[in-house]
Amino acid sequence: MPRRVHGSHRGGCGPLVPPGLGGEAPDRYDRSSVGRSLEAHIAAVDEEIRALLTGADPSLQPFYGMMLYHLGLDAERGPSGKRLRPVLCTLVYEALTGDARGALPAAAAIELLHNFTLIHDDIEDQDPARHHRPTVWSVWGVPQAINAGDGMFAVSRLAVQRLHGFPAERVLEFAKLVDEACVRVCEGQFLDIAFETRTDVTTERYRAMAAKKTGALFVAAAQGAALLATDDIAVRETLARFGDAFGQAFQAHDDVLGI
Amino acid sequence: MPRRVHGSHRGGCGPLVPPGLGGEAPDRYDRSSVGRSLEAHIAAVDEEIRALLTGADPSLQPFYGMMLYHLGLDAERGPSGKRLRPVLCTLVYEALTGDARGALPAAAAIELLHNFTLIHDDIEDQDPARHHRPTVWSVWGVPQAINAGDGMFAVSRLAVQRLHGFPAERVLEFAKLVDEACVRVCEGQFLDIAFETRTDVTTERYRAMAAKKTGALFVAAAQGAALLATDDIAVRETLARFGDAFGQAFQAHDDVLGI
Repeated sequence: MPRRVHGSHRGGCGPLVPPGLGGEAPDRYDRSSVGRSLEAHIAAVDEEIRALLTGADPSLQPFYGMMLYHLGLDAERGPSGKRLRPVLCTLVYEALTGDARGALPAAAAIELLHNFTLIHDDIEDQDPARHHRPTVWSVWGVPQAINAGDGMFAVSRLAVQRLHGFPAERVLEFAKLVDEACVRVCEGQFLDIAFETRTDVTTERYRAMAAKKTGALFVAAAQGAALLATDDIAVRETLARFGDAFGQAFQAHDDVLGI
Repeated sequence: MPRRVHGSHRGGCGPLVPPGLGGEAPDRYDRSSVGRSLEAHIAAVDEEIRALLTGADPSLQPFYGMMLYHLGLDAERGPSGKRLRPVLCTLVYEALTGDARGALPAAAAIELLHNFTLIHDDIEDQDPARHHRPTVWSVWGVPQAINAGDGMFAVSRLAVQRLHGFPAERVLEFAKLVDEACVRVCEGQFLDIAFETRTDVTTERYRAMAAKKTGALFVAAAQGAALLATDDIAVRETLARFGDAFGQAFQAHDDVLGI
């Protein structure tokens, strides 16, 4: 994954960078405690997600337990999934501001959105397994699995509400970007299901579908991080294009693996 | 449904009331063009919803067509559903500001949220019909119906983005209220499904479930309208309690009808 490293901060309006974490020496780039490794980014995102899914009333713990299970964040084993989208978000934000931490709620929101679609995809495709574990619907049944996906979608909105230190206008702008991406994802999924019974699907139509279903959240991850970090429209637009290209490359790679 | 009619505006920060629509004579209450009747409120909410669900690219019209069908907003026949929640929202807002129109996007968001849960409920309960029509899943199949519900959830977020004339902080506060309500609805649905296989469900537990599953959106409708209309915490809290009581009364009535 390309890394963008800047020697100075660019118009960031996120939380102030703590001393010693990149804020003091404009000529060098010190990674924050989050940014020491990709693994540290992933761990920080997972911690943010856990904070949203734990602490419920005992009667509701099995509800959140389904979500933690799907994410591989239950006690049994390590995380499921590559966390590509949230790490794209925190890396871009870190590159622009010097500290990934301000964007963790944004990254968590995007990862929860992605995973709610996976819980529902598994039902729609009747897939019995994901990441070598039984899928949520095959353990708890279709009704609870549909509702667990809905719950994860709803919780992703609470993640957005945890963005602190930004002007309200900017949080709303980020929410709008994610909301529009989410509509695109559902539109793409509609086309994908519809294509299954059609024989006139051109390459162009397939790519338009994949750009919605897969590309939209990659764009939101990169563009959303840029939007939170800077007012510079050129930087925002460049990173949106980067997210789009990255999403298409990911989709092509995934499709080749799936053949 | 109780109506609250004020002779003067109370700390509203919504759009200015146009001349002749309640803004000029503090001793009398002139209803806006929306407020002439309950039917006018419903028509205005439906128009707001239609604006969100029409105008898509032709390839996506069948996607939005499923949502319009579920809402009874397709060409074939009149609206399905009583629109109780959105009208509670616009009536409260009208009572506090003299003009319902500023709250129409909020009302549309709440109605879309409610209806996305109905599309999914119908799958979970395997109900073949609603409002004397085949349910979405029984016409288009489970995969498209799950995704149509997800799409309606996503579109409800775009509705919130259409709130104009309010400070960004207030729109975010409204979004948070709705987001939290939505999490409660999913928690309530989890409990409801779980209760089906349990024999130890007390009246108290049933009421706690219903307060989440049904009550939360009624509270959001009344409290959300108050939040948009006024800074007065006492008014907001009173209307939140009213929404809660109204939701419980509605649920009890509905349960008696369903016995």
